[in-house]
Amino acid sequence: MSEFRILEIKQSIFENNNKQADQLREQLKKEDLFLLNLMSSPGSGKTTTLTKTINLLKSELRIGVMEADIDSDVDAVTIAKTGAKVIQLHTGGMCHLDAGMTKQGLEGLGTNDLDLIILENVGNLVCPAEFDTGSSKNAMILSVPEGDDKPLKYPLMFQICDVLLINKIDVLSVFDFDIELCKERVLKLNPKIKIIPISARTGEGIPEFAQWLKTEVQNWKGNPHE
Amino acid sequence: MSEFRILEIKQSIFENNNKQADQLREQLKKEDLFLLNLMSSPGSGKTTTLTKTINLLKSELRIGVMEADIDSDVDAVTIAKTGAKVIQLHTGGMCHLDAGMTKQGLEGLGTNDLDLIILENVGNLVCPAEFDTGSSKNAMILSVPEGDDKPLKYPLMFQICDVLLINKIDVLSVFDFDIELCKERVLKLNPKIKIIPISARTGEGIPEFAQWLKTEVQNWKGNPHE
Repeated sequence: MSEFRILEIKQSIFENNNKQADQLREQLKKEDLFLLNLMSSPGSGKTTTLTKTINLLKSELRIGVMEADIDSDVDAVTIAKTGAKVIQLHTGGMCHLDAGMTKQGLEGLGTNDLDLIILENVGNLVCPAEFDTGSSKNAMILSVPEGDDKPLKYPLMFQICDVLLINKIDVLSVFDFDIELCKERVLKLNPKIKIIPISARTGEGIPEFAQWLKTEVQNWKGNPHE
Repeated sequence: MSEFRILEIKQSIFENNNKQADQLREQLKKEDLFLLNLMSSPGSGKTTTLTKTINLLKSELRIGVMEADIDSDVDAVTIAKTGAKVIQLHTGGMCHLDAGMTKQGLEGLGTNDLDLIILENVGNLVCPAEFDTGSSKNAMILSVPEGDDKPLKYPLMFQICDVLLINKIDVLSVFDFDIELCKERVLKLNPKIKIIPISARTGEGIPEFAQWLKTEVQNWKGNPHE
């Protein structure tokens, strides 16, 4: 188990978040660091998915995790058990992270010895979609119990993500969730998004997500002028 | 089925939301109108819970519903089938409602012929907790698949609510959710909160919630100087 500290991050003072995000992305590119921004509702399974994914990738990639939450350190404790480098970010009531806050987190984490950094954003389908964190790619989780109508209600989140993990497919039989209808609704909003059905609990689909992530990290490092 | 319209609400211009909320609450009190603010994560079952509750109460109370969402009208369509008066509020990307926005919603709905109005807030455990809507009482839903650690991560929401519905108890057996531990965590944050386990799908617990709501409406009307 790795050790971690809790960082109280401050609201950003930058007015132009998009500019700040582009600058951070450029800096990460220069440093060969890939940053994944992972978003979802509360309780969709972000931390369990990360744990399983890290365990598959940790022999090949040096991984760091930033756990953002309003309060508590339960997620950082869980991630630390994988041996990944981890920091808990407390957002001081803020419902999302922007690029400035992400930068504070990266500085707190320390990134010299890493290939891949994953930001577990605050559990929220609304606000995090509106703020570019400076990430290389955006991922989101929608879990089966939340319902297949979520793309209709929170379209922006589905539009800005590169990959959608449909989690908790092991309980599909006990919920009214039409996975084909859900995919159709998502692809209508974002035809380029990759959709991977998973069960973080059973591990189903996690190798496919890990492979996607590994390829993205390699592409990021291999194409300095992307 | 009742008819409904969609109202695009504007961001409030009032700086002091708390004052605006107190004024709205006072106005509702004078007009014998009870306003319940219902909050939860996306997909916790707010609309299904409301449908079942309205069906139990509609012979005794004249009920109106304001459905707040970033986009879509799927919830208003569902509620309209109960026969309740309903309006869909589009928040223009806003992640919560404040008192000024709630007032716009009430004016759009029309409240002359109502006893009880329910505001289904935007699906979000963070921002809605920070803005008093002017409601008579606050209710929240936490569903079993979200996990029993949510009170640790989103404490403010649990602190400001008068009643907590723990929904989807029909699937308790397929999730790692310790209901006693969850109650303990919630009561530590808010010793006065009433906790009712329910299944909106099977109807279990809905009569208890409907009774709680009926009593609160009666108390509100019966105590003009409360």
